[in-house]
Amino acid sequence: MSDQMQQIVLASRPTGAPSQENFRLESAAIPSPAEGEILVKVSHMSLDPYMRGRMDDAKSYAAPVPIGGKMEGGSVGVVLSSNAPGFAEGDHVFGPFGWATHSTANAKMCRKLDPAQAPVTTSLGVLGMPGFTGWLGLKEYGRPKAGETLAVAAATGPVGSMVGQLAKAQGLRTVGIAGGAEKCALAKDSFGFDACIDHRAYDNVKDLRKAMKDAAPDGIDVYFENVGGPVLDAALSLMNPHGRIPVCGMIAWYNAGGLGADAAGQGLTAPKIWRTILVNFLSVNGFIISNHWDRFPEFVAEVAPMIADGRVKYQEDITEGLENAPQAFMDLLTGGNHGKAIVKVG
Amino acid sequence: MSDQMQQIVLASRPTGAPSQENFRLESAAIPSPAEGEILVKVSHMSLDPYMRGRMDDAKSYAAPVPIGGKMEGGSVGVVLSSNAPGFAEGDHVFGPFGWATHSTANAKMCRKLDPAQAPVTTSLGVLGMPGFTGWLGLKEYGRPKAGETLAVAAATGPVGSMVGQLAKAQGLRTVGIAGGAEKCALAKDSFGFDACIDHRAYDNVKDLRKAMKDAAPDGIDVYFENVGGPVLDAALSLMNPHGRIPVCGMIAWYNAGGLGADAAGQGLTAPKIWRTILVNFLSVNGFIISNHWDRFPEFVAEVAPMIADGRVKYQEDITEGLENAPQAFMDLLTGGNHGKAIVKVG
Repeated sequence: MSDQMQQIVLASRPTGAPSQENFRLESAAIPSPAEGEILVKVSHMSLDPYMRGRMDDAKSYAAPVPIGGKMEGGSVGVVLSSNAPGFAEGDHVFGPFGWATHSTANAKMCRKLDPAQAPVTTSLGVLGMPGFTGWLGLKEYGRPKAGETLAVAAATGPVGSMVGQLAKAQGLRTVGIAGGAEKCALAKDSFGFDACIDHRAYDNVKDLRKAMKDAAPDGIDVYFENVGGPVLDAALSLMNPHGRIPVCGMIAWYNAGGLGADAAGQGLTAPKIWRTILVNFLSVNGFIISNHWDRFPEFVAEVAPMIADGRVKYQEDITEGLENAPQAFMDLLTGGNHGKAIVKVG
Repeated sequence: MSDQMQQIVLASRPTGAPSQENFRLESAAIPSPAEGEILVKVSHMSLDPYMRGRMDDAKSYAAPVPIGGKMEGGSVGVVLSSNAPGFAEGDHVFGPFGWATHSTANAKMCRKLDPAQAPVTTSLGVLGMPGFTGWLGLKEYGRPKAGETLAVAAATGPVGSMVGQLAKAQGLRTVGIAGGAEKCALAKDSFGFDACIDHRAYDNVKDLRKAMKDAAPDGIDVYFENVGGPVLDAALSLMNPHGRIPVCGMIAWYNAGGLGADAAGQGLTAPKIWRTILVNFLSVNGFIISNHWDRFPEFVAEVAPMIADGRVKYQEDITEGLENAPQAFMDLLTGGNHGKAIVKVG
């Protein structure tokens, strides 16, 4: 083993969509684990939409990545050396190792994985943060009831596909929204959506809304909000009284350049939003999954058997090589991925 | 007693702010109560912001008043004749008698009042729909905790003053927003607000926001939304993580001409609203009090003693004469009233 590692740092903050120049691949010495830490050789790292937010300097629930700092994120790998009780060389672990070939981390932030139980990459997606986000948001804030209709965008992504499959299993009509005919076919054939709307087939909210209305003839009771933009605009207008909107992300707006920008939802004015919330008695709840880790064991206990027996399916989109992470991340933000975006690092 | 009554009907639908020409005073024959109905001579009628919505043809939680139809609303009066069990001539009642000197109504929609217990006009305000709206919204969706900060606009109105006093009694810091120095003094001196912002003293959201921030140095945990417009814009930017926003009205936007219009909140774009909900894990709940009447007895049991012992104060703004109801209603929509707007009809 060389004593050099590679990592990708934030070279500059993007305005709008990130580009290659915002990232820089660097070499660094492999660190030693301090007291309570482990050193890990990363095998796979996760790419998630929230990382776009960390590249900005705006107020958010987490501090931004500093200029020159390693891009953050969850990864899986194998312990090279441990300075923490309970972890030993050779253990498979999930942790906040970021965009890097090697990393130390506080062992308390890491979780041991059993590769015999499930492929370790599932801890980045269907059995990790994205799947947990879908499960928690649906259960806690979506409050689904059999016979209702649920809509979710990015329907083939790791959050949307979890939400759709769990809702379907609970007897709801499920309407997915995805970009392109191929993803729509995947949503229906693999993830069991009753209908899937290809938002790329529509160049205005009115037509998108009509397609969604046709797919949800009884209106929408739960709109799981993970994209924002025109889909939100259309979905909001189709909400039934007493509808619920869990809000966990707004990828359509992440590249819009900060709080004031309105890249997509020009028709969605403040009075329209608030009036819709009021006259339909909507319940809108923002949440971030990191406030809910105490319920992670409950999630695993409920969903792992559903994965094992095929009730919950998942798909991964694996890019080879740390150096290709920036391009894969940019693709993710524009919907170029097919399934949970993962980079195979080593 | 004459057999003619007077009533005010909707002559035409307003575009923007209503004007006299949208209303028409008419004479009509006093009706007889059908089976299950009572005939009432109205003494006082309520004016409430929600009535503006009923003048529009837009989709809302209630059907619009038809052109030529009597303006709807809650009133109090005395039973002239009863064709319903449990009601007798001379009973004091609250019911949906609308803008009229006399009215029949289904007795099931009416409630007997005891004038010895509280003045009958309190059933239109502090012990009626507005007070109940404040109580229910705060308890159910505001979920106040001692030590937190609450903000509410229209702080001297019947909803805002109830919300402020209940929150204060529960140990919250209370920040009112009201129009004019006189109302702000009333909010502090009579309704016990810790601070009150005169929104008319600011001609832009930024300065309004700064004043609200000074009044709520620890941020806002509960923003009780009953006005919309610039106050909402400013309040939203001051919300603390895990904040709650009960939404019961948006008077600032009622005259804005329907869903698409954005009369006030130009700075409040859709991405800004949704991003704030997301990154602060806000809980936003629209509600209409008519879905919650089953809890009315609980409200009365809790609040009536607080009125009796002075913990909850109230103020009424009484206009004389049915013919002056349109002007009083227009004044209400622009904040010209001082306390619960009531018209003394007979």
